[in-house]
Amino acid sequence: MTDFARTRALFEIPEGVIYLDGNSLGPLPVAAKKRVADMLSEEWGKHLIKGWNVSGWMAQPRRVGDRIGKLIGAPEGTVVMGDTLSIKVYQALAAALDLNPDRKVVLSDSGNFPSDLYMAQGLIGSLGRGLELKVVEPEEVEAAIDETVAVLMVTEVDYRTGRLHDMKALTQKAHAAGALAVWDLAHSAGALPVDVYGADADFAVGCTYKYLNGGPGAPAFIYVAPKHAETARPALSGWLGHEAPFAFDLDYRAGQGIDRMRVGTPPVIALTVLDAALDAWEGVSMLDVRAASIGLCDLFIREVEGRCPGLELATTRHGHQRGSQVSFRHPQGYAIMQALIARGVIGDFRAPDAIRFGFTPLYIGEKEVLGAVAILESIMKDGLWDRPEYHRKAAVT
Amino acid sequence: MTDFARTRALFEIPEGVIYLDGNSLGPLPVAAKKRVADMLSEEWGKHLIKGWNVSGWMAQPRRVGDRIGKLIGAPEGTVVMGDTLSIKVYQALAAALDLNPDRKVVLSDSGNFPSDLYMAQGLIGSLGRGLELKVVEPEEVEAAIDETVAVLMVTEVDYRTGRLHDMKALTQKAHAAGALAVWDLAHSAGALPVDVYGADADFAVGCTYKYLNGGPGAPAFIYVAPKHAETARPALSGWLGHEAPFAFDLDYRAGQGIDRMRVGTPPVIALTVLDAALDAWEGVSMLDVRAASIGLCDLFIREVEGRCPGLELATTRHGHQRGSQVSFRHPQGYAIMQALIARGVIGDFRAPDAIRFGFTPLYIGEKEVLGAVAILESIMKDGLWDRPEYHRKAAVT
Repeated sequence: MTDFARTRALFEIPEGVIYLDGNSLGPLPVAAKKRVADMLSEEWGKHLIKGWNVSGWMAQPRRVGDRIGKLIGAPEGTVVMGDTLSIKVYQALAAALDLNPDRKVVLSDSGNFPSDLYMAQGLIGSLGRGLELKVVEPEEVEAAIDETVAVLMVTEVDYRTGRLHDMKALTQKAHAAGALAVWDLAHSAGALPVDVYGADADFAVGCTYKYLNGGPGAPAFIYVAPKHAETARPALSGWLGHEAPFAFDLDYRAGQGIDRMRVGTPPVIALTVLDAALDAWEGVSMLDVRAASIGLCDLFIREVEGRCPGLELATTRHGHQRGSQVSFRHPQGYAIMQALIARGVIGDFRAPDAIRFGFTPLYIGEKEVLGAVAILESIMKDGLWDRPEYHRKAAVT
Repeated sequence: MTDFARTRALFEIPEGVIYLDGNSLGPLPVAAKKRVADMLSEEWGKHLIKGWNVSGWMAQPRRVGDRIGKLIGAPEGTVVMGDTLSIKVYQALAAALDLNPDRKVVLSDSGNFPSDLYMAQGLIGSLGRGLELKVVEPEEVEAAIDETVAVLMVTEVDYRTGRLHDMKALTQKAHAAGALAVWDLAHSAGALPVDVYGADADFAVGCTYKYLNGGPGAPAFIYVAPKHAETARPALSGWLGHEAPFAFDLDYRAGQGIDRMRVGTPPVIALTVLDAALDAWEGVSMLDVRAASIGLCDLFIREVEGRCPGLELATTRHGHQRGSQVSFRHPQGYAIMQALIARGVIGDFRAPDAIRFGFTPLYIGEKEVLGAVAILESIMKDGLWDRPEYHRKAAVT
C-alpha cells in the first residue's frame, strides 16, 4: 500500500491552506530547494561549462523522461523532456500528419485545452495543404472518427469537466479508420494510471507542473511510439535532435529514436527541480493513487451536493469516467472561487462558469475535503461571494 | 566608467580556474542563489497558484524581455522571453517568410550556428511551397543578397571565428532588395553594443546563457520590429500568445504586438535566475565592455602569436570586425583544449579544428589573459597535449 502520510510530508503547503489546485500547479516539493541550491553551487558554480558532461546535464532530458515514462506506461527510451506542452503538441501533430500524408482532417474536441487547438491551427496554417481542424463535442469524438481523419488529437482528461476519454478504445477506432492518435496527458500524468504503449498511442505529450509538481512552467514531455521512432519527421529540427549535434554539420540529419524530438539546449535548472519533484513517486502505486482520488472526488461531490445549494455538478459521477478533478457550475463561479481563496481554499475558475477542484492524494486527504466543503457551504448559504472585490478579474484565473 | 571590479565580484568562479568560456555558458551569478531560493519558498511555496498574479510570474517574460531590450537597442515592449533559441529562430523565420510570400530563398551563411540552419530546413520542409535555403560563405553574404531573397537570416557573430557581420549595412542591403532580415544575437547580446532598432532589423533572437549568464538552458528572447508587431503571423500560436488566454476560446486570435510571440507557460524558475543575472548589467556601459573586450582579445592574440608556436589565428585581427572571442586552429585542437582544461584554463573546441576563447570583461581581465597564455605556451612548447586521455571525446565538446 502506498504510504500517503510519507508523500504528504514531501510537500510544503502553507498553514491554513487547503490546496485543491494541484491540477493547475502542484505545490513545492521540499527536496527541490536543496537540489536546486546544490545544482547551482556544486554543478554550475564549480563545473561551469563542464557540467554538460560531468553533471550529466546533456543526458538529463532522456533520464528524466524515463522517470516520467514509468508513470505513463512508456518503455524506456521513448520519452524525452523539453520546451513547453504547446511546443510538444506541435511536434507530435506535425510528425503524425507527415505519417499520414493523404488525409486532410485533424479531429479534436471542444474539451481539448485551447492551446492544443491553437497550435494545430498555426501548424495547419503553415502546412497549407488543405488541412482542416475539425472540433466536435467530446461525446461526439468516437462517431466522428472516419476515413477522412488523418490524426485524432485529444486530451485524455477534459480540463473543464474532468471527463475522461477512453484512450485505448479511441486509439483503436482511429487506427481502424487509418488515422493516427496523439494524446495530451496534461491532466493524466500523475493523476491516474496511463498506459500509452498498451493503448497503442502513436504520440503522447504532457506537462509536468500539474500532478507532477515540477514548478511553474516546468518542461514538457513527448512520447513517440517505438514503431514511429525512426520515421517521425521532426518539424522542429533543432541541433540537439541532430544525429551528431557536436559535429556542427550544415545539414540536419534526424537523431536516433526519441532523441530527434529534442530541439534546443535543455532547461537544466528547471529539469533539476522536476527531477527532485519526481522523487515523490518512488514507492507510489498509481492504482492506489487512483483509488484514493476517486474516493476523495466522490466524497467531495456527495458533500457539496448535500450541503451547498445552487451548484451544478459539471463532472460525471462515475469515478472511472473522470480524471482527478471535480467541477461545479454556477453563474457567479468566479466570485465564489475568489471567496473560497480568501478563506484559504484554493481551487480555480475556468470560463465561463466552472469552479474547479483537483484532488491529489499525494498530499490531500479526507480532512482537507471536508474542510473545503465546510467553507464552501458557508459561502453559499450566507452569500459571502457577493462582495465587489470578488468580482474583480485577475490577470490569471 | 564601468567598475569591472564591482561586476567581477558578482560572479562565482572557482579558485584556480581561468574561465574563457563565458561565450558558451556564463558563470554563476552569486545573486541567483538567494533569488531562486526565495522564489521557491516565498513565491511558489507560499503563494502556490496565486504566484501567477501576486508574484508577477505572468508578466515576467515581458519584464525580463525589456531588460534585455536595453542591451540590444530594442524599444520597450518589443522583446519577450521564452522557449529556446532554436524555437525563436523558427518563429522569427516563419513570420518573416509570411511577410514576404512571393520570394523563395532564405539566405544564410556557413558561419551561422547549425541549429539555425536546421530549424530553417525543418520549417521549409513543412511549408513546402518551393522555398530554398541558400547557404553561402560568410564573406559572400553581401553579394548574395538579390531579388530572389525572401529573408536574410544570419548570426551577427560567427560562433567559430568570431567574425562580425555589419548588421546595419546588410539589413539595409536586404531591404533595398525587398528582403527581410532576421538576426541571431547569440554571441552579441551582452558582448557588444547592438542596436536592433537603429539597424532596422525586422526580427532578432538570442539566447541568454552565454554573455548574459542566465544558466544552462536559460530562456531565449525574440525581438519584433514595431512595424511588424501587429502583422507578424505567429506560426507557433500557443495560448499565451492569444489575445485573451484566459477566455479559453476555441479559436486563436493573435495577441497585441510582441505578446503574440509568447507560446506556452513561461519557465518561471529559469526566468528568475536570469533576472538575477541581469542585475550585473546595472550601471554597465556596453561601450566600456566593448573597449575592454577588444583590449583583452588583442592582448591574447598578440601574446599567443608571440609565444605559442603552431597555432593559426582563425579570428580577424581587427577588433571592430569581430565579436568578443578569439579562435585558433590546430589539427590537434581538441587535445590541446583538453590539456588546457586539465590545467584550469577553460575554453572550448569547435569542430573540426578550432580552439575558442571568450573574453568577458564583467569578470575577466588582463591577469587572466596572461595566465591563460602562460599555460597554453607550456602546453604547446612541451607537447603536453599529446596524452591519450586528451584525445577521448566527451559527449559535449
